[in-house]
Amino acid sequence: MIERLVIIGVGLIGGSLSLALKQAGKVGQVIGCGRNLQELQKAVELGVIDSFEESIAKAVESADMIVVAVPLGAMETVFDQMKGNISKDAVITDVGSAKASVVKVAKAALGSQFVQFVPGHPIAGAEKSGVEAGFASLYQNRRIILTPVPDTHELATKKVDSMWRACGANIDYISVEHHDKVLAATSHLPHMLAYALVNYLSSLNDHDEIFRYAAGGFRDFTRIASSDPVMWRDVCLSNGEALLTFIDGYKSELDMISAAIQTNDADALLELFGKAKSERDSLIGSC
Amino acid sequence: MIERLVIIGVGLIGGSLSLALKQAGKVGQVIGCGRNLQELQKAVELGVIDSFEESIAKAVESADMIVVAVPLGAMETVFDQMKGNISKDAVITDVGSAKASVVKVAKAALGSQFVQFVPGHPIAGAEKSGVEAGFASLYQNRRIILTPVPDTHELATKKVDSMWRACGANIDYISVEHHDKVLAATSHLPHMLAYALVNYLSSLNDHDEIFRYAAGGFRDFTRIASSDPVMWRDVCLSNGEALLTFIDGYKSELDMISAAIQTNDADALLELFGKAKSERDSLIGSC
Repeated sequence: MIERLVIIGVGLIGGSLSLALKQAGKVGQVIGCGRNLQELQKAVELGVIDSFEESIAKAVESADMIVVAVPLGAMETVFDQMKGNISKDAVITDVGSAKASVVKVAKAALGSQFVQFVPGHPIAGAEKSGVEAGFASLYQNRRIILTPVPDTHELATKKVDSMWRACGANIDYISVEHHDKVLAATSHLPHMLAYALVNYLSSLNDHDEIFRYAAGGFRDFTRIASSDPVMWRDVCLSNGEALLTFIDGYKSELDMISAAIQTNDADALLELFGKAKSERDSLIGSC
Repeated sequence: MIERLVIIGVGLIGGSLSLALKQAGKVGQVIGCGRNLQELQKAVELGVIDSFEESIAKAVESADMIVVAVPLGAMETVFDQMKGNISKDAVITDVGSAKASVVKVAKAALGSQFVQFVPGHPIAGAEKSGVEAGFASLYQNRRIILTPVPDTHELATKKVDSMWRACGANIDYISVEHHDKVLAATSHLPHMLAYALVNYLSSLNDHDEIFRYAAGGFRDFTRIASSDPVMWRDVCLSNGEALLTFIDGYKSELDMISAAIQTNDADALLELFGKAKSERDSLIGSC
């Protein structure tokens, strides 16, 4: 049971966490914190949070759990404003989709209290953002990755683990470095590919007509290009090195397809597409 | 009303056409034709076709509508086997997803009867293929592109138009060349990108774990990589030139993102992603 939960950044992710914990009866007071007062007011009206506090320093004072759910680019400021105001029993976690950069700013800001911080990342979300998009079942059967470092207090990790389990999620433990690599491959790279495709087609002369004939496959393929640009700018700035490596590797793979088309190599094309189909069908299923 | 409809290639596309016309009461006899007898037997058992005929030459003899629904790579053989056996009042159409290549082989095979051929392409389909995947409402509110050439008999075009309208589809008329360009952009290119992504991730050492963390966005993004490899091999061979141009253009767009990541250019990244989001939201909607 969390007596006093402070959520910094009450959007889809933070809001859904609050709703899930309330539904599970695992939380007392939920206090929202953020830069947008209108959004916070809306969150109270929607019953997502019980009250809000403008000052981060003041909000965290008596919290026993602090969840930082702001875009990666705002993490440093938030951690800076928290420092010196956190009780020694409080636990801090975050939901950032890159972990090395968050660990770095948290360590710098929190000093000796860094041991109370458990880096985390729920593998859940949607193209929609904002508190109205939140819902209590967002984390049901989803994976939450926790990446505690050797310094992290075991009890802190246990408390964050319990919080997410109460939301119906499954917890995985992997290292910070491995998290950032895996996510660059499965999430950051595909987002770049989708953004590039939409921009490329938009740049063509007859783009109105081109989009008109876009069928279901195209809609699915580009859905992630409707994601929040600020979040994805920050992901690029936070996990750029891994991402660049993957973009380069991806281009080489695409070149193999181009080469096979260029040489009319029917066998090579069939092999490339057959391999992809069977990999996807077996690893992900046909959903 | 079509008295005797011959469908060459009774899979998802051909089978669904038959089911839709039967449901609409717009067809008499439906005769299937194809290389796989087991599939044809299954199609009869499922009520998708009324009977089947092994020989294309024999099947088309008394047909008043012939729909060629085979992979692009099989078009030439099919048209060759039809020639000389088609009545002068019969109408022929196809469903190939590239049109210049089909027009070429149809013209070569049909000679003076080429005027009876109406090139077509339903913008519908699914990753699933085969006759069991067919359903009567597949074409409801979908677009069917018809690309008649100057030679094409107007009456033939009208009959194909009516057939698809009876299935609930909307008809668009564009040129063969324009069709192939638009489809290369909206369909063929995204398929290549998805195939390349799955193959690339599969080639990584820890690909099992990578696929394990694939979230909803990744599933959507790679769904089209589960499409039929034979069909897509044939698309590449049939529409390779347009496709190569688009792959190259796409890579340049991706390079712009890489460059912005490399130089930590926050403004450029925000602009690139913001543009893509607003284009997709406005042109396609957030579905």
